[in-house]
Amino acid sequence: MRYKITLSYDGTGFCGWQSQPNGGSVQDAVEQAVFKLFGERSRVVGSGRTDAGVHALGQVAHFDCGKELPLKNVTGGLNAYLPSAVRVLSADAVSTDFDARKSAKRKTYMYLMFAGSPLPVLNDRVLFLPETPNMRELDEQAKKLIGTHDFATFMAAGGGAKTSVRTVYDARFERDGSFIEFYITANGFLYNMVRIIVAQLLKAERGGADIAELIEKRDRNCAKELAPACGLYLHDVVYGGENE
Amino acid sequence: MRYKITLSYDGTGFCGWQSQPNGGSVQDAVEQAVFKLFGERSRVVGSGRTDAGVHALGQVAHFDCGKELPLKNVTGGLNAYLPSAVRVLSADAVSTDFDARKSAKRKTYMYLMFAGSPLPVLNDRVLFLPETPNMRELDEQAKKLIGTHDFATFMAAGGGAKTSVRTVYDARFERDGSFIEFYITANGFLYNMVRIIVAQLLKAERGGADIAELIEKRDRNCAKELAPACGLYLHDVVYGGENE
Repeated sequence: MRYKITLSYDGTGFCGWQSQPNGGSVQDAVEQAVFKLFGERSRVVGSGRTDAGVHALGQVAHFDCGKELPLKNVTGGLNAYLPSAVRVLSADAVSTDFDARKSAKRKTYMYLMFAGSPLPVLNDRVLFLPETPNMRELDEQAKKLIGTHDFATFMAAGGGAKTSVRTVYDARFERDGSFIEFYITANGFLYNMVRIIVAQLLKAERGGADIAELIEKRDRNCAKELAPACGLYLHDVVYGGENE
Repeated sequence: MRYKITLSYDGTGFCGWQSQPNGGSVQDAVEQAVFKLFGERSRVVGSGRTDAGVHALGQVAHFDCGKELPLKNVTGGLNAYLPSAVRVLSADAVSTDFDARKSAKRKTYMYLMFAGSPLPVLNDRVLFLPETPNMRELDEQAKKLIGTHDFATFMAAGGGAKTSVRTVYDARFERDGSFIEFYITANGFLYNMVRIIVAQLLKAERGGADIAELIEKRDRNCAKELAPACGLYLHDVVYGGENE
């Protein structure tokens, strides 16, 4: 029996998604909850890793269990065993063809900023910007990301990707009062790609960079800055056949 | 030299505003920072208490110090000594006629709710509602609070107020996507008044209460529920002559 679950988490207190020998990851917490609910040890496979401090609004994962439970009980049962920083939003029964990582067709990340005085209730949840940026300039720069490009400039070492070519379907800024949101949708993301992109977009807004030129360089040395993890949210993952 | 400071804090880790023998309050944290910056022990007087877990976007306080520092250094210096959960947003030099508590003319509280699946990044910051409430019904009920009334129904024991008559200048609901905001402005608030009101407004929305009738009763036994502290924000405090 294969289950697909959609998860939201506050990444602040975790060492990231990926299981670690001493625990402390979101994956460890979910695997522990699966064990407590089903009485079976099962690997929980996520759509991809998120780094320490990165949040998720709609991470997707799958796991296999011999026992069959009503889906409502899977959601409620896992939430009963999970810390409040991780919530299962929904559970589905899927065929074993479904793989949360390999079947993912596109993912959207959101990067959340707040322009103005730092408000403590937003600590670890946004990047604080001292003033409201020029939204038109930001959005124009973001649009240059759209398309199939070699994003080597925006890839940190250690990700182990075979190719740095990715297709960005959409990249845009939205403003809601003092909140500035950057959304980027692609068929996949390189290691630290969104955080490197955000750092360059903010630099470009101040006239210190141009996204098209940076893509052309294919060299991380041209884009060394990394926006902090706390502003980054895995927004959603889309699989074949759905929402298309 | 009297300083007026405007503060924002995440109330989650504090036992409230009010100084406690063993520390752990916001007031204790601010007094500690004042001592470190000015080298003097000084009482920091807030516009009013906030309970454990209640947040502030614009709490106001005053304190006296013999030493005179540039206002920019007061803000920056206090922030350097304060934990990140408390931020000084601004500092002013005021006359000794100004008293953060006694001179306050009106205060606004916000109660923040989120309709939908609990998102962990909002834990301790909102009241989660299972579904979107009827905004028109909520707002109609809220409007019944406006005016000068005896709010005894909405007063918890232990506040020590001389009278339970207060003037509510405005009370309204706003919706921003999944966020539901309740704003209430008055010349003063009774102990737990906003949290008791919010619990009754949500009950009224489901047809189980009426605010006008509850005011009429003048009896807390008719309104025993208390909305959780984590949704409550002291929004701002207005003093004579300002913003009027």
